[in-house]
Amino acid sequence: MKAAFYEGKGQITTGSCTPTDPGAGQVRVRVSHCGICGTDLHIFHGNMDHRVKLPQIIGHEMSGMIDAVGPAVEGGWKAGDRVTVRPLDSCGNCPACVAGHSHICMNLKFIGIDSPGAMQSLWTLPARTLHRLPEHLSFEQAALIEPIAVACHDVRMGELKAGEQAVVLGGGPIGLLIGLVAKAKGASVLISEVNPFRVELARSLGLDVIDPSIVDVVAAVNDRTGGAGADVVFEVAGAGATVELMTKLPRTRGRIVMVAIHSQPKPVDLFRFFWRELRLIGARVYEAEDFDEAIALAAAGSLPLDRVISKVVPIEGLAGAFHEMESGGEVMKILVRCGE
Amino acid sequence: MKAAFYEGKGQITTGSCTPTDPGAGQVRVRVSHCGICGTDLHIFHGNMDHRVKLPQIIGHEMSGMIDAVGPAVEGGWKAGDRVTVRPLDSCGNCPACVAGHSHICMNLKFIGIDSPGAMQSLWTLPARTLHRLPEHLSFEQAALIEPIAVACHDVRMGELKAGEQAVVLGGGPIGLLIGLVAKAKGASVLISEVNPFRVELARSLGLDVIDPSIVDVVAAVNDRTGGAGADVVFEVAGAGATVELMTKLPRTRGRIVMVAIHSQPKPVDLFRFFWRELRLIGARVYEAEDFDEAIALAAAGSLPLDRVISKVVPIEGLAGAFHEMESGGEVMKILVRCGE
Repeated sequence: MKAAFYEGKGQITTGSCTPTDPGAGQVRVRVSHCGICGTDLHIFHGNMDHRVKLPQIIGHEMSGMIDAVGPAVEGGWKAGDRVTVRPLDSCGNCPACVAGHSHICMNLKFIGIDSPGAMQSLWTLPARTLHRLPEHLSFEQAALIEPIAVACHDVRMGELKAGEQAVVLGGGPIGLLIGLVAKAKGASVLISEVNPFRVELARSLGLDVIDPSIVDVVAAVNDRTGGAGADVVFEVAGAGATVELMTKLPRTRGRIVMVAIHSQPKPVDLFRFFWRELRLIGARVYEAEDFDEAIALAAAGSLPLDRVISKVVPIEGLAGAFHEMESGGEVMKILVRCGE
Repeated sequence: MKAAFYEGKGQITTGSCTPTDPGAGQVRVRVSHCGICGTDLHIFHGNMDHRVKLPQIIGHEMSGMIDAVGPAVEGGWKAGDRVTVRPLDSCGNCPACVAGHSHICMNLKFIGIDSPGAMQSLWTLPARTLHRLPEHLSFEQAALIEPIAVACHDVRMGELKAGEQAVVLGGGPIGLLIGLVAKAKGASVLISEVNPFRVELARSLGLDVIDPSIVDVVAAVNDRTGGAGADVVFEVAGAGATVELMTKLPRTRGRIVMVAIHSQPKPVDLFRFFWRELRLIGARVYEAEDFDEAIALAAAGSLPLDRVISKVVPIEGLAGAFHEMESGGEVMKILVRCGE
């Protein structure tokens, strides 16, 4: 029974997990694998110390099996069911929840940031967060359902249709998954990315990738679209350069999906929004239907998920994995093995 | 037969109009009234000298009566028909036109900027630009159809529905008309405007107006919406302060319509787009249906148009009207009388 604890900036320890009996509406899940998210790296860097309580068990991209079911659980869940978790805890009462947007609840608690996460052998949490995994989907692949659901949400919010041209600015884990989901849905995809490892990995997965430090992205998009411009641009990189680029690429009435987290205001060419009647669409986390779609895509084998997983480390390897991620190592997604 | 000519920065002359026989597909219109637009003021200031040819007859917000009909004109137009003009000249071949967005044609020519405009007694132009005016709508009021169509387009692009809360940042002619159209369609409207004349005029027309130099707009909007935020925000002012304000006002999944022309990139809080899944919607000019709606609203008496018209001047009064507008005079919309 192990858990990884964030103990403060740059400090991760591994210790014993304290299993909790599931209360009303709760289940206890035997966690199999948990992916490391960029948000986890932000926590490791101390950037989210205003939200986490020390010591904090982090992690929210997981797969596992129900170990025990508490009283008053709906949905027919039973021990042994293979599951993943949609780690959102909404208040149900705020204007956003009342309007049907509980995934961006104005008092949203994110499980694994605001409450204990998945990097522990036995994890107790509300049964309403569960999604069922198909038998034939491996626990390794299923640990990618959460970031795939992010990609599904982004693609859905951008209303990307088959046959349309998508451009993804940034080819990290989320950008790559957006590209893969968009391609699986029949869109043409062009990824703009500078990191050679990411460029090569995306290319090896059949995606069209250009390096904006070498190739003129605007010219490349116009070439591919007969001068019209892209139907949908996904801004995933979060850089000033990509914010400058994002408005130059869409066609008239084209859409830009804002996936990246920009902690500071950045200059935006608002004239271009007026001139081409562009749309900027903010997209955050996911809704239940995005998890359903992510599971369906993964179960259908539509996505080369094994190639997205760079390595699997034991729970004791979390700190080392963070160091590898922050040093720009040749890794896309690292999974942590949380079971015994 | 008179015309007003823009002769270069700050120079307007009045001279003889040279009537042209209408060619194939054209009509000659006896212009009654022409409103002065902010764009005309930009031309007067020399800011659009790269587009206009000197001497340039400007003006594009007009009403009048058909004087002569050329050959091969479709639509059953005849001399004596009361009309207004949708002053857009699209190429029909570019990707925007092919995609059905000819109003924002990638080679769009704007009649009255890129070709001679309405501030002349007899104006020859393509019959396909005409919209029919109801008999009982005065020529003075009908000269407002073009800016009302802008407002109708902005409201339509923002998908504003009856019962929703709209906030309009800027209470000049377009902001005021957006407010009036939004109110006529059943929305609650709050206008933010600093100019005391504009504040009082909008209030006298039954609109709710606050001065952001006195009142906290965010608090005012949250008060009116139970903390949820506005459904739709219209950014009409074109200032850095309103760009900063616009992202603070919408509810989760709320919309911001970009009406203003921002000649330079401005800092935008992109985090807020992510956090609340906001949408920014660029809106430019109008489509035929917006003119139809503007005429229907004006004909139904749904808008207090006589109060929007501050004064009517003869064509010789154009330069003086520009000086009054640029000096922040107590004027909303000034019309030029173009007939004999």
